[in-house]
Amino acid sequence: MTIKEAGERYNLQTGELSGQYASHSQKKLSQLAGVFADAEAFSAMDGEQPVYEVDAHMAVEEGTSGGLFFGTSTIHPGRVGNEYFMTKGHFHQKRETAEYYWGISGEGVLLLMDKNRRCTAEKVEKGSLHYIGGHIAHRLVNTGDTDLVVGACWPSDAGHDYGSIETAGFSIRVVCEDGKAVLRESR
Amino acid sequence: MTIKEAGERYNLQTGELSGQYASHSQKKLSQLAGVFADAEAFSAMDGEQPVYEVDAHMAVEEGTSGGLFFGTSTIHPGRVGNEYFMTKGHFHQKRETAEYYWGISGEGVLLLMDKNRRCTAEKVEKGSLHYIGGHIAHRLVNTGDTDLVVGACWPSDAGHDYGSIETAGFSIRVVCEDGKAVLRESR
Repeated sequence: MTIKEAGERYNLQTGELSGQYASHSQKKLSQLAGVFADAEAFSAMDGEQPVYEVDAHMAVEEGTSGGLFFGTSTIHPGRVGNEYFMTKGHFHQKRETAEYYWGISGEGVLLLMDKNRRCTAEKVEKGSLHYIGGHIAHRLVNTGDTDLVVGACWPSDAGHDYGSIETAGFSIRVVCEDGKAVLRESR
Repeated sequence: MTIKEAGERYNLQTGELSGQYASHSQKKLSQLAGVFADAEAFSAMDGEQPVYEVDAHMAVEEGTSGGLFFGTSTIHPGRVGNEYFMTKGHFHQKRETAEYYWGISGEGVLLLMDKNRRCTAEKVEKGSLHYIGGHIAHRLVNTGDTDLVVGACWPSDAGHDYGSIETAGFSIRVVCEDGKAVLRESR
Protein backbone atom coordinates (compact mmCIF):
# COMPACT_ATOMS: atom_id res chain seq x y z
CA MET A 1 0.00 0.00 0.00
CA THR A 2 1.25 3.46 -0.85
CA ILE A 3 0.36 7.06 -0.12
CA LYS A 4 -1.82 8.32 -2.99
CA GLU A 5 -1.34 11.76 -4.48
CA ALA A 6 -4.44 13.88 -3.88
CA GLY A 7 -6.10 14.11 -7.29
CA GLU A 8 -8.59 16.76 -6.19
CA ARG A 9 -7.23 20.28 -5.89
CA TYR A 10 -8.40 23.54 -4.33
CA ASN A 11 -6.41 26.68 -4.99
CA LEU A 12 -6.59 28.69 -1.74
CA GLN A 13 -5.74 31.99 -3.46
CA THR A 14 -8.05 31.78 -6.48
CA GLY A 15 -10.69 29.28 -5.31
CA GLU A 16 -10.14 27.23 -8.49
CA LEU A 17 -11.18 23.59 -8.18
CA SER A 18 -9.92 20.69 -10.25
CA GLY A 19 -10.05 16.92 -10.24
CA GLN A 20 -12.52 14.25 -11.27
CA TYR A 21 -15.38 15.67 -9.18
CA ALA A 22 -14.98 19.33 -10.19
CA SER A 23 -17.31 21.03 -12.64
CA HIS A 24 -17.77 24.56 -13.91
CA SER A 25 -20.85 26.50 -14.95
CA GLN A 26 -21.54 30.06 -16.06
CA LYS A 27 -24.51 32.40 -15.87
CA LYS A 28 -24.85 34.93 -18.67
CA LEU A 29 -26.82 38.14 -18.37
CA SER A 30 -29.56 36.75 -20.66
CA GLN A 31 -30.20 34.02 -18.06
CA LEU A 32 -30.94 36.66 -15.42
CA ALA A 33 -34.00 38.29 -17.00
CA GLY A 34 -36.24 39.83 -14.33
CA VAL A 35 -33.54 39.75 -11.66
CA PHE A 36 -32.47 43.40 -11.95
CA ALA A 37 -34.82 46.33 -11.36
CA ASP A 38 -33.91 48.40 -14.42
CA ALA A 39 -35.48 46.47 -17.34
CA GLU A 40 -34.57 49.18 -19.84
CA ALA A 41 -30.87 49.16 -18.93
CA PHE A 42 -30.98 45.35 -18.96
CA SER A 43 -32.38 45.12 -22.49
CA ALA A 44 -29.75 47.54 -23.81
CA MET A 45 -26.91 45.28 -22.61
CA ASP A 46 -25.18 42.32 -24.30
CA GLY A 47 -26.98 39.18 -23.07
CA GLU A 48 -23.90 37.08 -23.79
CA GLN A 49 -21.96 38.89 -21.08
CA PRO A 50 -21.00 36.48 -18.26
CA VAL A 51 -22.24 37.65 -14.85
CA TYR A 52 -21.03 34.83 -12.60
CA GLU A 53 -19.34 31.46 -12.60
CA VAL A 54 -19.69 28.53 -10.24
CA ASP A 55 -17.01 25.90 -9.65
CA ALA A 56 -18.49 22.94 -7.80
CA HIS A 57 -16.91 19.84 -6.31
CA MET A 58 -19.46 17.06 -6.07
CA ALA A 59 -18.14 13.67 -5.04
CA VAL A 60 -21.61 12.26 -4.31
CA GLU A 61 -24.97 12.55 -6.05
CA GLU A 62 -27.21 15.55 -5.48
CA GLY A 63 -29.68 14.61 -2.76
CA THR A 64 -27.30 12.34 -0.80
CA SER A 65 -28.15 12.57 2.89
CA GLY A 66 -25.19 13.34 5.16
CA GLY A 67 -22.93 14.30 2.22
CA LEU A 68 -21.41 17.67 1.35
CA PHE A 69 -20.57 19.74 -1.71
CA PHE A 70 -17.80 22.31 -2.00
CA GLY A 71 -17.56 25.23 -4.38
CA THR A 72 -16.38 28.62 -5.47
CA SER A 73 -18.59 31.42 -6.83
CA THR A 74 -17.04 34.18 -8.92
CA ILE A 75 -19.23 37.22 -9.55
CA HIS A 76 -17.82 39.54 -12.18
CA PRO A 77 -17.85 43.31 -11.66
CA GLY A 78 -20.57 45.26 -13.45
CA ARG A 79 -23.97 46.90 -13.08
CA VAL A 80 -27.39 46.91 -14.70
CA GLY A 81 -28.32 50.57 -14.37
CA ASN A 82 -27.19 51.41 -10.83
CA GLU A 83 -27.64 47.85 -9.53
CA TYR A 84 -24.56 45.71 -9.02
CA PHE A 85 -24.06 42.30 -10.66
CA MET A 86 -25.26 39.51 -8.38
CA THR A 87 -26.33 35.88 -8.23
CA LYS A 88 -29.95 34.81 -8.67
CA GLY A 89 -30.07 33.85 -5.01
CA HIS A 90 -31.99 30.97 -3.53
CA PHE A 91 -33.44 29.26 -0.51
CA HIS A 92 -32.37 25.66 0.00
CA GLN A 93 -35.08 23.23 -1.04
CA LYS A 94 -34.52 21.35 2.22
CA ARG A 95 -35.15 24.50 4.23
CA GLU A 96 -33.23 23.67 7.43
CA THR A 97 -29.90 23.16 5.65
CA ALA A 98 -27.11 25.65 6.21
CA GLU A 99 -24.13 26.83 4.14
CA TYR A 100 -20.71 28.34 4.82
CA TYR A 101 -19.33 31.14 2.63
CA TRP A 102 -15.85 32.61 2.95
CA GLY A 103 -14.45 35.60 1.09
CA ILE A 104 -11.41 34.82 -1.09
CA SER A 105 -10.97 38.06 -3.05
CA GLY A 106 -12.81 41.16 -4.18
CA GLU A 107 -15.48 43.20 -2.42
CA GLY A 108 -19.14 42.49 -2.06
CA VAL A 109 -22.25 42.02 -0.03
CA LEU A 110 -24.03 38.87 1.11
CA LEU A 111 -27.76 39.52 1.17
CA LEU A 112 -29.68 37.27 3.56
CA MET A 113 -33.47 37.08 3.76
CA ASP A 114 -35.74 35.07 6.04
CA LYS A 115 -39.16 33.70 5.07
CA ASN A 116 -40.84 36.90 6.32
CA ARG A 117 -38.72 38.82 3.78
CA ARG A 118 -36.60 40.45 6.47
CA CYS A 119 -33.15 41.15 5.04
CA THR A 120 -29.70 41.63 6.48
CA ALA A 121 -26.53 42.43 4.54
CA GLU A 122 -22.95 41.41 5.43
CA LYS A 123 -19.79 42.76 3.87
CA VAL A 124 -17.83 40.08 1.98
CA GLU A 125 -14.08 40.43 1.52
CA LYS A 126 -10.92 38.36 1.74
CA GLY A 127 -11.01 36.57 5.10
CA SER A 128 -14.67 37.14 5.96
CA LEU A 129 -16.56 34.03 7.12
CA HIS A 130 -20.33 33.73 6.83
CA TYR A 131 -22.58 31.12 8.40
CA ILE A 132 -25.90 31.00 6.57
CA GLY A 133 -28.34 29.19 8.82
CA GLY A 134 -31.32 27.18 7.65
CA HIS A 135 -34.43 28.91 6.23
CA ILE A 136 -32.37 31.85 4.93
CA ALA A 137 -32.22 32.86 1.25
CA HIS A 138 -28.79 34.07 0.14
CA ARG A 139 -27.45 36.15 -2.72
CA LEU A 140 -23.94 37.46 -3.47
CA VAL A 141 -23.49 40.97 -4.86
CA ASN A 142 -20.23 42.30 -6.31
CA THR A 143 -19.81 45.92 -5.22
CA GLY A 144 -16.18 46.23 -6.34
CA ASP A 145 -14.21 46.73 -9.55
CA THR A 146 -12.69 43.22 -9.60
CA ASP A 147 -14.10 39.68 -9.45
CA LEU A 148 -15.75 38.79 -6.15
CA VAL A 149 -14.59 35.25 -5.31
CA VAL A 150 -16.28 33.32 -2.51
CA GLY A 151 -15.75 29.77 -1.23
CA ALA A 152 -18.70 27.65 -0.14
CA CYS A 153 -19.59 24.35 1.51
CA TRP A 154 -23.13 23.00 1.78
CA PRO A 155 -25.02 19.73 2.39
CA SER A 156 -25.52 17.54 -0.67
CA ASP A 157 -29.23 17.18 0.13
CA ALA A 158 -29.81 20.96 0.43
CA GLY A 159 -31.08 21.44 -3.12
CA HIS A 160 -31.92 24.84 -4.59
CA ASP A 161 -35.25 26.62 -4.60
CA TYR A 162 -34.93 29.52 -7.04
CA GLY A 163 -38.67 29.78 -7.62
CA SER A 164 -39.72 31.94 -4.71
CA ILE A 165 -36.87 34.38 -5.37
CA GLU A 166 -37.71 34.49 -9.10
CA THR A 167 -41.30 35.40 -8.20
CA ALA A 168 -40.80 37.89 -5.39
CA GLY A 169 -37.09 38.76 -5.41
CA PHE A 170 -35.28 40.00 -2.33
CA SER A 171 -36.81 42.89 -0.37
CA ILE A 172 -33.52 44.81 -0.57
CA ARG A 173 -31.38 45.77 -3.58
CA VAL A 174 -27.72 46.82 -3.53
CA VAL A 175 -27.17 49.87 -5.72
CA CYS A 176 -24.43 52.35 -6.50
CA GLU A 177 -25.13 55.91 -5.37
CA ASP A 178 -22.40 58.58 -5.57
CA GLY A 179 -19.90 55.78 -6.22
CA LYS A 180 -20.85 53.95 -3.01
CA ALA A 181 -22.74 50.69 -2.38
CA VAL A 182 -25.97 51.34 -0.50
CA LEU A 183 -29.07 49.30 0.36
CA ARG A 184 -32.45 50.28 -1.03
CA GLU A 185 -35.86 48.74 -0.47
CA SER A 186 -37.09 46.91 -3.52
CA ARG A 187 -40.34 48.18 -5.01
CA MET B 1 -30.41 49.47 7.11
CA THR B 2 -26.68 49.25 6.59
CA ILE B 3 -24.10 46.75 5.39
CA LYS B 4 -22.66 45.04 8.47
CA GLU B 5 -18.96 44.33 8.80
CA ALA B 6 -18.35 40.57 8.89
CA GLY B 7 -17.41 39.86 12.50
CA GLU B 8 -16.35 36.31 11.79
CA ARG B 9 -12.95 35.87 10.15
CA TYR B 10 -11.09 33.07 8.41
CA ASN B 11 -7.47 33.62 7.49
CA LEU B 12 -7.00 31.81 4.16
CA GLN B 13 -3.20 31.53 4.59
CA THR B 14 -3.02 30.35 8.20
CA GLY B 15 -6.48 28.83 8.75
CA GLU B 16 -6.92 30.98 11.87
CA LEU B 17 -10.52 31.57 12.88
CA SER B 18 -11.88 34.42 14.99
CA GLY B 19 -15.19 35.93 15.92
CA GLN B 20 -17.94 35.19 18.42
CA TYR B 21 -18.42 31.58 17.26
CA ALA B 22 -14.74 30.60 17.13
CA SER B 23 -13.10 28.43 19.79
CA HIS B 24 -9.71 26.81 20.23
CA SER B 25 -8.65 23.54 21.83
CA GLN B 26 -5.38 21.68 22.20
CA LYS B 27 -4.37 18.04 22.57
CA LYS B 28 -1.23 17.34 24.57
CA LEU B 29 0.80 14.16 24.27
CA SER B 30 -0.46 12.94 27.67
CA GLN B 31 -4.01 12.94 26.24
CA LEU B 32 -2.95 10.51 23.51
CA ALA B 33 -1.96 7.54 25.66
CA GLY B 34 -2.35 4.28 23.73
CA VAL B 35 -2.51 6.02 20.35
CA PHE B 36 1.11 5.46 19.32
CA ALA B 37 2.67 2.00 18.95
CA ASP B 38 5.90 2.64 20.86
CA ALA B 39 4.80 2.80 24.53
CA GLU B 40 8.38 3.03 25.76
CA ALA B 41 9.24 6.03 23.58
CA PHE B 42 5.90 7.59 24.58
CA SER B 43 6.55 7.34 28.32
CA ALA B 44 10.01 8.89 27.93
CA MET B 45 8.54 12.04 26.34
CA ASP B 46 7.14 15.23 27.93
CA GLY B 47 3.38 14.71 28.28
CA GLU B 48 2.85 18.48 28.30
CA GLN B 49 4.05 18.74 24.70
CA PRO B 50 1.22 19.91 22.42
CA VAL B 51 0.55 17.50 19.54
CA TYR B 52 -2.33 19.22 17.77
CA GLU B 53 -4.72 22.15 17.94
CA VAL B 54 -8.27 22.54 16.69
CA ASP B 55 -9.89 25.85 15.80
CA ALA B 56 -13.62 25.41 15.41
CA HIS B 57 -16.35 27.75 14.22
CA MET B 58 -19.70 26.67 15.64
CA ALA B 59 -22.60 29.04 15.05
CA VAL B 60 -25.24 26.44 16.01
CA GLU B 61 -25.43 23.83 18.74
CA GLU B 62 -23.77 20.45 18.34
CA GLY B 63 -26.41 18.05 17.04
CA THR B 64 -28.32 20.61 14.96
CA SER B 65 -29.78 18.88 11.90
CA GLY B 66 -28.97 20.58 8.60
CA GLY B 67 -26.31 22.83 10.15
CA LEU B 68 -22.56 22.92 9.56
CA PHE B 69 -19.35 23.49 11.49
CA PHE B 70 -16.11 24.87 10.10
CA GLY B 71 -12.61 24.40 11.44
CA THR B 72 -8.86 24.22 11.16
CA SER B 73 -6.65 21.43 12.51
CA THR B 74 -2.96 22.09 13.15
CA ILE B 75 -0.79 19.03 13.77
CA HIS B 76 2.65 19.89 15.04
CA PRO B 77 5.74 18.13 13.68
CA GLY B 78 7.21 15.33 15.79
CA ARG B 79 7.37 11.59 16.33
CA VAL B 80 6.85 9.02 19.05
CA GLY B 81 9.60 6.55 18.22
CA ASN B 82 9.39 6.29 14.44
CA GLU B 83 5.67 7.13 14.30
CA TYR B 84 4.62 10.61 13.22
CA PHE B 85 2.44 12.91 15.35
CA MET B 86 -1.22 12.50 14.41
CA THR B 87 -4.77 13.13 15.56
CA LYS B 88 -6.75 10.56 17.56
CA GLY B 89 -8.95 9.95 14.54
CA HIS B 90 -12.66 9.18 14.64
CA PHE B 91 -15.73 7.93 12.88
CA HIS B 92 -18.69 10.27 12.91
CA GLN B 93 -21.31 9.22 15.42
CA LYS B 94 -23.97 9.72 12.74
CA ARG B 95 -22.18 7.34 10.42
CA GLU B 96 -23.47 8.58 7.03
CA THR B 97 -22.16 12.13 7.52
CA ALA B 98 -19.29 13.35 5.37
CA GLU B 99 -16.52 15.93 5.84
CA TYR B 100 -14.32 18.09 3.61
CA TYR B 101 -10.64 18.61 4.38
CA TRP B 102 -8.33 20.92 2.44
CA GLY B 103 -4.60 21.31 2.88
CA ILE B 104 -3.46 24.81 3.89
CA SER B 105 0.24 24.28 4.69
CA GLY B 106 2.75 21.61 5.62
CA GLU B 107 2.97 17.99 4.52
CA GLY B 108 1.03 15.04 5.74
CA VAL B 109 -1.16 12.05 5.20
CA LEU B 110 -4.89 11.57 5.60
CA LEU B 111 -5.58 8.03 6.78
CA LEU B 112 -9.04 6.77 5.89
CA MET B 113 -10.53 3.50 7.15
CA ASP B 114 -13.86 1.82 6.45
CA LYS B 115 -15.83 -0.33 8.90
CA ASN B 116 -14.04 -3.45 7.63
CA ARG B 117 -10.74 -1.82 8.67
CA ARG B 118 -9.61 -1.34 5.08
CA CYS B 119 -7.35 1.72 4.90
CA THR B 120 -6.33 4.15 2.22
CA ALA B 121 -3.88 7.04 2.58
CA GLU B 122 -3.94 10.37 0.72
CA LYS B 123 -1.17 12.91 0.61
CA VAL B 124 -2.15 16.24 2.22
CA GLU B 125 -0.43 19.44 1.16
CA LYS B 126 -1.28 23.04 0.30
CA GLY B 127 -4.12 22.91 -2.24
CA SER B 128 -5.14 19.27 -1.80
CA LEU B 129 -8.89 18.70 -1.38
CA HIS B 130 -10.27 15.61 0.36
CA TYR B 131 -13.85 14.40 0.42
CA ILE B 132 -14.37 12.01 3.31
CA GLY B 133 -17.57 10.12 2.63
CA GLY B 134 -19.87 8.66 5.26
CA HIS B 135 -18.86 5.60 7.29
CA ILE B 136 -15.14 6.42 6.98
CA ALA B 137 -12.84 7.00 9.96
CA HIS B 138 -10.26 9.73 9.39
CA ARG B 139 -6.95 10.70 10.97
CA LEU B 140 -4.39 13.36 10.03
CA VAL B 141 -0.67 12.57 10.24
CA ASN B 142 2.09 15.19 10.02
CA THR B 143 4.96 13.72 7.99
CA GLY B 144 6.84 17.02 7.56
CA ASP B 145 9.10 19.29 9.60
CA THR B 146 6.57 22.13 9.94
CA ASP B 147 2.98 22.40 11.19
CA LEU B 148 0.44 20.56 9.06
CA VAL B 149 -2.57 22.90 8.73
CA VAL B 150 -5.85 21.58 7.33
CA GLY B 151 -9.22 23.26 6.82
CA ALA B 152 -12.45 21.36 7.47
CA CYS B 153 -16.22 21.60 7.12
CA TRP B 154 -18.65 19.02 8.52
CA PRO B 155 -22.33 18.64 9.46
CA SER B 156 -23.27 19.89 12.92
CA ASP B 157 -25.09 16.63 13.66
CA ALA B 158 -22.11 14.43 12.70
CA GLY B 159 -20.78 13.99 16.23
CA HIS B 160 -17.56 12.13 17.03
CA ASP B 161 -17.10 8.47 17.85
CA TYR B 162 -13.57 8.09 19.21
CA GLY B 163 -14.38 4.86 21.06
CA SER B 164 -13.91 2.32 18.30
CA ILE B 165 -10.61 3.90 17.27
CA GLU B 166 -9.41 4.02 20.89
CA THR B 167 -10.12 0.30 21.20
CA ALA B 168 -8.83 -1.02 17.89
CA GLY B 169 -6.84 1.83 16.32
CA PHE B 170 -6.33 2.13 12.58
CA SER B 171 -5.04 -0.91 10.70
CA ILE B 172 -2.22 1.17 9.19
CA ARG B 173 0.43 3.34 10.84
CA VAL B 174 2.52 6.06 9.19
CA VAL B 175 6.14 5.74 10.21
CA CYS B 176 9.50 7.25 9.28
CA GLU B 177 11.95 4.83 7.67
CA ASP B 178 15.23 6.08 6.19
CA GLY B 179 13.87 9.62 6.52
CA LYS B 180 10.75 8.82 4.45
CA ALA B 181 7.10 8.42 5.40
CA VAL B 182 5.90 4.88 4.74
CA LEU B 183 2.80 2.86 5.61
CA ARG B 184 3.05 -0.17 7.86
CA GLU B 185 0.37 -2.60 9.01
CA SER B 186 -0.48 -2.13 12.65
CA ARG B 187 0.10 -5.15 14.87
